[in-house]
Amino acid sequence: MAKKIILNEKDLPTKWFNLIPHLPGPLPPPLHPGTRQPAGPDDLAAIFPMNLIEQEMCPDSWVPIPEELLKVYSIWRPTPLVRADRLEQFLGTPAKIFYKNEMVSPPGSHKPNTAVAQAYFNKVAGVKRLTTETGAGQWGSALSFATHIFGLGCRVYMVKCSFYQKPYRKSLMRLWGGEVFPSPTDMTNAGRQILAKDPDTPGSLGMAISEAVEEAATNSDCNYSLGSVLNHVCLHQSIIGLETQKQFESIGLKPDVVIGCAGGGSNFAGLAFPFVKEKIDGRDIKIIAVEPAACPTMTKGPYRYDFGDTAGTTPLMKMHTLGHDFVPAGIHAGGLRYHGMAPLVSAGIKHNLIEPQAKHQLECFEASVTFARTEGFVPAPETSHAIRAAIVEALECKKTGQEKVIVFNFSGHGHFDMSAYDDFFDGKLHDYDYPKEKIDAALASVPQVE
Amino acid sequence: MAKKIILNEKDLPTKWFNLIPHLPGPLPPPLHPGTRQPAGPDDLAAIFPMNLIEQEMCPDSWVPIPEELLKVYSIWRPTPLVRADRLEQFLGTPAKIFYKNEMVSPPGSHKPNTAVAQAYFNKVAGVKRLTTETGAGQWGSALSFATHIFGLGCRVYMVKCSFYQKPYRKSLMRLWGGEVFPSPTDMTNAGRQILAKDPDTPGSLGMAISEAVEEAATNSDCNYSLGSVLNHVCLHQSIIGLETQKQFESIGLKPDVVIGCAGGGSNFAGLAFPFVKEKIDGRDIKIIAVEPAACPTMTKGPYRYDFGDTAGTTPLMKMHTLGHDFVPAGIHAGGLRYHGMAPLVSAGIKHNLIEPQAKHQLECFEASVTFARTEGFVPAPETSHAIRAAIVEALECKKTGQEKVIVFNFSGHGHFDMSAYDDFFDGKLHDYDYPKEKIDAALASVPQVE
Repeated sequence: MAKKIILNEKDLPTKWFNLIPHLPGPLPPPLHPGTRQPAGPDDLAAIFPMNLIEQEMCPDSWVPIPEELLKVYSIWRPTPLVRADRLEQFLGTPAKIFYKNEMVSPPGSHKPNTAVAQAYFNKVAGVKRLTTETGAGQWGSALSFATHIFGLGCRVYMVKCSFYQKPYRKSLMRLWGGEVFPSPTDMTNAGRQILAKDPDTPGSLGMAISEAVEEAATNSDCNYSLGSVLNHVCLHQSIIGLETQKQFESIGLKPDVVIGCAGGGSNFAGLAFPFVKEKIDGRDIKIIAVEPAACPTMTKGPYRYDFGDTAGTTPLMKMHTLGHDFVPAGIHAGGLRYHGMAPLVSAGIKHNLIEPQAKHQLECFEASVTFARTEGFVPAPETSHAIRAAIVEALECKKTGQEKVIVFNFSGHGHFDMSAYDDFFDGKLHDYDYPKEKIDAALASVPQVE
Repeated sequence: MAKKIILNEKDLPTKWFNLIPHLPGPLPPPLHPGTRQPAGPDDLAAIFPMNLIEQEMCPDSWVPIPEELLKVYSIWRPTPLVRADRLEQFLGTPAKIFYKNEMVSPPGSHKPNTAVAQAYFNKVAGVKRLTTETGAGQWGSALSFATHIFGLGCRVYMVKCSFYQKPYRKSLMRLWGGEVFPSPTDMTNAGRQILAKDPDTPGSLGMAISEAVEEAATNSDCNYSLGSVLNHVCLHQSIIGLETQKQFESIGLKPDVVIGCAGGGSNFAGLAFPFVKEKIDGRDIKIIAVEPAACPTMTKGPYRYDFGDTAGTTPLMKMHTLGHDFVPAGIHAGGLRYHGMAPLVSAGIKHNLIEPQAKHQLECFEASVTFARTEGFVPAPETSHAIRAAIVEALECKKTGQEKVIVFNFSGHGHFDMSAYDDFFDGKLHDYDYPKEKIDAALASVPQVE
């Protein structure tokens, strides 16, 4: 078998897959933050274009990918499916381990799959510029890349502590023409209110979302763009899993275990949802979403309505949540430090289609080092969670002798996270757990709906 | 036409191409640093294994690539040949621009093509560990990656100023198990002598080579590994051009212009030498090696015998040189700051097969920004020289209306060089030229041979 299973550009999927109509029950609708009634398309129109709102609420299984977007995807897609045979040998497992390599995009992660789609549909709708938030900078750099391709402006509110700790993802945004500000700023009401209470706040994703949403809502030529969580984001990311299905088909295999790390849920959803459909249709398949133990949204947070941002300005979504003002510990997997989880992933957990797992930081870094020393490529700290889970599954096969086929999403490279590896080798990293009291306290501010 | 021209793993070249027997005249031999007589295999045996020495002096056109090495190459090879159609459209040129994407390897450059080969042949020869030097860290990280794959130790002498300025390539070496020291160190005679004269020296590649060679020469289980310049390095890199030939063949095109940046010469040689053979056989083809104006080895340095290192311990090689104690200005393209040029590339220039060009730093960074904003990927500062030359050729086609096919080597990504882009945007970068007096002064210490 070849090391890399490669598709031709003519085999690029031409439609995205939508999980919504296949769920065993209806997906609970978003609620208006004021009225707490189901939010209609018009309630979202202040910050999203109607074509994306239609995708967000789409009842169809398939949504065509526009020709112009397929051309942009071809810059880095189809991405390779890689047999991690060197890792298998190191582990001494009879399992076959594969990874879908999403690091090959210009920004180095899966994020541009939806960034270019969102930029395209906003452009078509006549929007001139986009605002967004970013934590470690993966999403901000992907959207800067995407908006530049379609000639839109881009303003990124970057969580303040990351702005100063991760200067090079900021440089990347600048290279692609994005404007970046350390959030909270004094440019928005939300930012000014937060700064008035705590001028030295390190910032958080929830705060940065509040700022980006406010700017989009109060400027008519400007929309907001979110890099995860929402249904249309999961839709765009489905191209990952659709390619993976074709790649396995080309070598006559089907995965028994499908794994992705999950912060907001989009890279996991992208790989997993086409396989969730196979599971709904009756195939025996284990689908694992891996989160950090330091931010245990799926494994310890309840499934209930909550806001997407700190200020409580977004619609309420039914999801696993740790409370919208929960601030997780400063782990290096910045992209997994979000209080909520995609409503579609949350619903998949409720219907027992998806198994959530939580992993600690140190075991994940260990897994990343093992991966880099066998397969070569350097994983992002987020990706290390998926690798850890894959190694655990493979070692289980070693015990049982089962020759399972395991696939995980290599969501991004760690080239801009090398200081995290230094901290790991220098013994500076610690594991974090959240005691129940702390979670209960954070949940106290979540509105009671239902 | 597809955006990316992809080869299957079964189309990986199984032999390297050797230019030596095809040159219009014999390649001048290396000379022993003491006797100044032609150096034989035994003179090199203290620091290289005999299998690599045979490749260094190989009279054959083709050298088989061992099966085990092909398996390692398959981690990232064959690499894509990419149509830069977005760049073409931006320039408004009728030329077709292609780039060979060598950034897809784990260390992010073409360097592992020879690193894994050198590690493999040393392993076969029973060597336990390798020493080397590195400037910006591309080579040191590639050799750390390669030695880890074959279970060898690796010690890297990293130019001191880069050791502190570029911490993350150091982290990369550490991740792959390499030991890294800021050179000059007090661990070698060469290092101690340099430090005695100037304790605050920023270091140089020439100094680091002296240290690495000394350690290899004085330890029987340890050999030295050089990342460029030598014939066997150019041989291993030829896989780049051999793949490129197959890729152009698959789309029915032949390049009219072939471009690579050149520091020691290996990435240029890798892409270009198979095409140099086509030129020797009569095809009309322009082959351009691009160096920085701040280190104008090919365009301003004479073609004569000189040492490869500062201390004068390596054999003398006939090459373009600025003098072995020349210290170039601190441009960001650290990999192009070398006083000499591969003897094979130098001979190609002498025989009018290769056209050298020098480009200034600012125009190269401009070219890189244009590339990143059209094609997406972020070039290393070294690679920017090749991009600049390709853009100049494409703009010339715009004037003349010629539909030339241009290909350049995208030798590496700039993910660890983002501070250079910040300096560029902040207006902190300057152009450098070397006045003739300075070059003449540096050449005064070059031994008179012939």
